[in-house]
Amino acid sequence: MEVETQYTQFDSLNLDCGVTLNPVDCAYQTYGQLNTNKTNAILVTHAFSGDAQAAGIDKDTGQKGWWDNMIGPGRAFDTDKYFVICSNVLGGCKGSTGPASLDPATHRPYGMGFPVITMADMVRLQKKLIESLGIKKLLAVAGGSMGGMQALQWAVQYPDAVAAAIPIATTARHSAQQIAFNEVGRQAVMADPDWNGGEYYIGRPPARGLAVARMVGHITYMSDESMRQKFGRRTRENDDIFEVESYLRYRGSQFVDRFDANSYLYITKAMDLFDLTHNGDMTLTAALESATTRFLVISFTSDWLYPSYQSQEIVNALRRRNHDVAYCELESNYGHDAFLVEVKEQSELVRGFLAKTFKGMNR
Amino acid sequence: MEVETQYTQFDSLNLDCGVTLNPVDCAYQTYGQLNTNKTNAILVTHAFSGDAQAAGIDKDTGQKGWWDNMIGPGRAFDTDKYFVICSNVLGGCKGSTGPASLDPATHRPYGMGFPVITMADMVRLQKKLIESLGIKKLLAVAGGSMGGMQALQWAVQYPDAVAAAIPIATTARHSAQQIAFNEVGRQAVMADPDWNGGEYYIGRPPARGLAVARMVGHITYMSDESMRQKFGRRTRENDDIFEVESYLRYRGSQFVDRFDANSYLYITKAMDLFDLTHNGDMTLTAALESATTRFLVISFTSDWLYPSYQSQEIVNALRRRNHDVAYCELESNYGHDAFLVEVKEQSELVRGFLAKTFKGMNR
Repeated sequence: MEVETQYTQFDSLNLDCGVTLNPVDCAYQTYGQLNTNKTNAILVTHAFSGDAQAAGIDKDTGQKGWWDNMIGPGRAFDTDKYFVICSNVLGGCKGSTGPASLDPATHRPYGMGFPVITMADMVRLQKKLIESLGIKKLLAVAGGSMGGMQALQWAVQYPDAVAAAIPIATTARHSAQQIAFNEVGRQAVMADPDWNGGEYYIGRPPARGLAVARMVGHITYMSDESMRQKFGRRTRENDDIFEVESYLRYRGSQFVDRFDANSYLYITKAMDLFDLTHNGDMTLTAALESATTRFLVISFTSDWLYPSYQSQEIVNALRRRNHDVAYCELESNYGHDAFLVEVKEQSELVRGFLAKTFKGMNR
Repeated sequence: MEVETQYTQFDSLNLDCGVTLNPVDCAYQTYGQLNTNKTNAILVTHAFSGDAQAAGIDKDTGQKGWWDNMIGPGRAFDTDKYFVICSNVLGGCKGSTGPASLDPATHRPYGMGFPVITMADMVRLQKKLIESLGIKKLLAVAGGSMGGMQALQWAVQYPDAVAAAIPIATTARHSAQQIAFNEVGRQAVMADPDWNGGEYYIGRPPARGLAVARMVGHITYMSDESMRQKFGRRTRENDDIFEVESYLRYRGSQFVDRFDANSYLYITKAMDLFDLTHNGDMTLTAALESATTRFLVISFTSDWLYPSYQSQEIVNALRRRNHDVAYCELESNYGHDAFLVEVKEQSELVRGFLAKTFKGMNR
């Protein structure tokens, strides 16, 4: 399936911080066909470093979509039945407005002049996109990691506009440890003199700092066990370098070519700020009170970055008010990466859940 | 107890890599009195960023020793009974020869010209120190984390010179994940332009890179739970900064004043290279075959950096050949830091184990 990114622009977007972006760009892709009732649309939301290409093969780069194993004809998100949409998040660097975009006021990249954004802001832009496609109510919003945060945010922000939410390997709010890992990444970026206060768009980007940040990320995405299986203590280059070192260096250096350092700062911050309980102002149960969507919550046994107890907190909060929620903790050695690679059981869960939701919505 | 660091020098030290250091300095402290039979000496070995001051109050800085809660009159390592020695490791930056030391051949700091060192080299220098103090056989070698690696190394390298080993919160070899965390730290240091290939002793040190490296370290030393208890999602400075961010930044920046960046590189590498099985050339059981020491192995439930299964591997290998080994996994929320702060049960275990060993040695 050959795919192509589409671009749309909206006049303005009001942000939580009080700033209004105008205009604002949104890059997206769609797969499958919207039915005449417009009741088969699914929004798939990407994780931190993802983009609008969730599925298919990019016709220019030949790259596969980040959830291609889950989206397509006959797959979990079956494009023979559903119309699947994925957009690059606000603050990103893959076609939607972000810190690398030109500030219309100055005709220069926003850089650190970009306003602080939140998960609610990202979702607000997605809502505009959905409306522009003529869709009043999504069949589902589904995503893993930061994508799961967006799914949760949709359920509380637009309960009437989404029938089902599938938050996977995620949390209702970052723990101190999750904030800490993000902060280390940010400090690594900002410690690089090439970062230059975010003003590097006419110079060279903070490649070394961003690479270090990405290395930290990769460790947290894998499990102790999956690293042992993949690398163990094997060495290369005349025994001088452990394979795991070589892998991390490669993945770190590679990341620089495809990601903007300021987007790294803004998006990780949005993740850290995300908190359905508004920093404890309300219980999670109260926060999810208004959600009328059905939920399918999935976590993975070896995911220590977004451990299962965080998914269970969400499930418990929903059950306390008799929300319609299914939960499954899937067995996996892949750590946080599991939501991208453990396709089999995840597909079955998603497939059944979507079919039932679709039936209910089209009764 | 007011303490002071002593310094000694040896003509030469042969290293695993084939290089001979001459001369080589060794900084150390001692607490308590050596008995006339010289059978009450305990070597305490420090972790990665430790130093020779294991106990007491430094008379200049007022700083407490890193294991002061474990060493002193009436404490686990009872200085009324035992003569406790702690030395700064080879490759360190607290008085023993390391990359910041002057290379006698060039009269300039070694920098990256310092030879690659191993855990066996560190232990070889400690052996020289012990001999210079007239001690033929240590009652025990005890330490946590990298200190535990040294305790294990002593048991296989000098089985006749140590009656007991107490490796705590440690491993017989780093996993891919442990290597990965160290590698991220090294890359953070080397990404800092001020590192300058290790030639920064007349310029400014790579403060930002070393701070990032230390931040990663601190996350791995704590547990998810202890970070939640200590910081949660609390903020400071007008809600702009999470407390955990502020803490990590502080600890990172502080580290630069007390640690040499090149020592960071060399010592973490020695930890990664440490492998009692010689990269799988022999089983752990075979590797520990020659050890005639008694063992007390301790791990902590929430330590995810040196998880209990690694201690259990050591214990299982020892038991397979009927070595005298006691093992205890202590309940703690403190993560890897537990070996420094969970004093109560650890003290009881160590106290009883030392008393029994002392009795056996002085029969």
